[in-house]
Amino acid sequence: MLSEFSLIDRFFARRARTGHVHHAALGIGDDCALIAPPAGEVLAVSTDMLVEGRHFFPDVDPHALGHKALAVNLSDLAAMGARPLGFTLALALPAAREEWLEAFSAGLFELADRFDCELMGGDTTAGPLNICITVFGAVPPQRALRRDAAQPGDDVWVSGTPGDARAGLGVLRGEWRADDADAAMFRHALERPEPRVALGLALRGIARAALDVSDGLAGDLQHILESSRVNAVIDADAVPRSAALARLAPDVQRRCTLAGGDDYELCFTAPPGARDAVDAAAQRAGVPVTRIGTIVPPENADAAPAIAWCDAAGNPLSLTLHGFDHFHAD
Amino acid sequence: MLSEFSLIDRFFARRARTGHVHHAALGIGDDCALIAPPAGEVLAVSTDMLVEGRHFFPDVDPHALGHKALAVNLSDLAAMGARPLGFTLALALPAAREEWLEAFSAGLFELADRFDCELMGGDTTAGPLNICITVFGAVPPQRALRRDAAQPGDDVWVSGTPGDARAGLGVLRGEWRADDADAAMFRHALERPEPRVALGLALRGIARAALDVSDGLAGDLQHILESSRVNAVIDADAVPRSAALARLAPDVQRRCTLAGGDDYELCFTAPPGARDAVDAAAQRAGVPVTRIGTIVPPENADAAPAIAWCDAAGNPLSLTLHGFDHFHAD
Repeated sequence: MLSEFSLIDRFFARRARTGHVHHAALGIGDDCALIAPPAGEVLAVSTDMLVEGRHFFPDVDPHALGHKALAVNLSDLAAMGARPLGFTLALALPAAREEWLEAFSAGLFELADRFDCELMGGDTTAGPLNICITVFGAVPPQRALRRDAAQPGDDVWVSGTPGDARAGLGVLRGEWRADDADAAMFRHALERPEPRVALGLALRGIARAALDVSDGLAGDLQHILESSRVNAVIDADAVPRSAALARLAPDVQRRCTLAGGDDYELCFTAPPGARDAVDAAAQRAGVPVTRIGTIVPPENADAAPAIAWCDAAGNPLSLTLHGFDHFHAD
Repeated sequence: MLSEFSLIDRFFARRARTGHVHHAALGIGDDCALIAPPAGEVLAVSTDMLVEGRHFFPDVDPHALGHKALAVNLSDLAAMGARPLGFTLALALPAAREEWLEAFSAGLFELADRFDCELMGGDTTAGPLNICITVFGAVPPQRALRRDAAQPGDDVWVSGTPGDARAGLGVLRGEWRADDADAAMFRHALERPEPRVALGLALRGIARAALDVSDGLAGDLQHILESSRVNAVIDADAVPRSAALARLAPDVQRRCTLAGGDDYELCFTAPPGARDAVDAAAQRAGVPVTRIGTIVPPENADAAPAIAWCDAAGNPLSLTLHGFDHFHAD
């Protein structure tokens, strides 16, 4: 068992001191880290807490967990159109197991290095496993992709193939089955989500509203509608799905794509005149994007914003979908 | 049982939206909060995680817990000479009990309001009780109170009367006894520490090195010595103690003042020529400060920095003291 200070030093602090501190004026080893955004930009800040049994299984590969803990935070920066700068890590551990820490920190830093996102500070304590990361990015304030900027007439877009992570959860839980190759793909989507940072940056000045899909497309799009005080018409059949997901039962496909969680794809709106620009941005970022519907005016000032679902033929669908809510059974 | 979103909205988000968002360009309700330091300043960032059974007892008054969770973070800003701007709150809760949340959020926001420190974002999840706050302050980078700036010849100072919080823990644990009035004072010190923000701000440009005493004076001063590569001679009898602490046994007094945790007083160094300025700063901040020793050169380049303890007569004391280490039994 390592003591707290040698534990931090061995796996985290030393790493932060050796040539990787350049965004921050002062990093680990003082009471605070010091950081400033580049001239003309502001800091985008987001915090996410991951809990065993809720966000990951007790037997999760610690390398994958290190990846995912940072990935979900980078995804929030992506949704804001912010460039990653750094993060703080607070970690509660039942015991300081070297093997676990080595794999966890490797998964974490491999992703951090890819996005030039440095560890700036942290806290470690004994306790039930809990990972809390606060991430910092930079964005020119006028170009930030907010949730409240959708306008009637905007196209609604989504990146990637939402639903694969939920399909993976269902396989692990025994809710449905897939062959080994599909199951492995689903599990990769669940455990190693890819934050769409490059897409978020490419969409600056092109997209109007954006967010990342962490709690399911239906529930998350609802946040844009509420913030922007608009409605949406969404073609449920237009939401893209992976070849593996398309091999599951149709009702499972719909449940995964529309109400699955843990996707970390971007859902965003943009005016129809920007379609070529959106496609070009997606190409630059190397991420496929798909138009799935349209923003429409609210029915009246008092009505709660809502999604009207339709099928490929334009016929209305009656769907009752809820996003993942951490205080309800899923 | 409230759902996650109505829970956040009821106790936290709505509060952040009504007239209190002014440091941040964009607060709760988007993927990220946006924040920028004032011109010429940088952001000071610190994160602390509090775990049940480790940092507080299961039956702690939730109002006190809300206070303390933010206080320990504000204390890190104080130790940096930074002015509080805002914070993010990540909260894992076994269940969303309204009564608990009402008291916790009241304790949190009463302290936040006193320091004009706004809630900018957060995350809530089900899980074993865990509170992770990341706090943001502003400081001109050249005037930040760092740990690595102590110089031989500096006086070593401490604010307040360290040890009262540890005395309170001892009373709660039955390690020693105190009469009701003393026990209440100790418990107040343990549960409602006062972050020395005003003192940290007043010491800008006067103190050289500083930190807050969270893990015990001996262990924390050691961090300054290691960062600054110097030694210290400390008069153990000069460390001030409260009247209540002075009524406990002499060995308990020493244990509490020198190796107690959870004090959140500032320990700092300043050149002898700045004594009047330090006293004036302390007076402005309304916090007593006491000189307890001197920074001296390291014995040689290879020796580990160390504290030489002495008594009031200048006689060397042989003390074996350790700071509180979260992975060891206390």
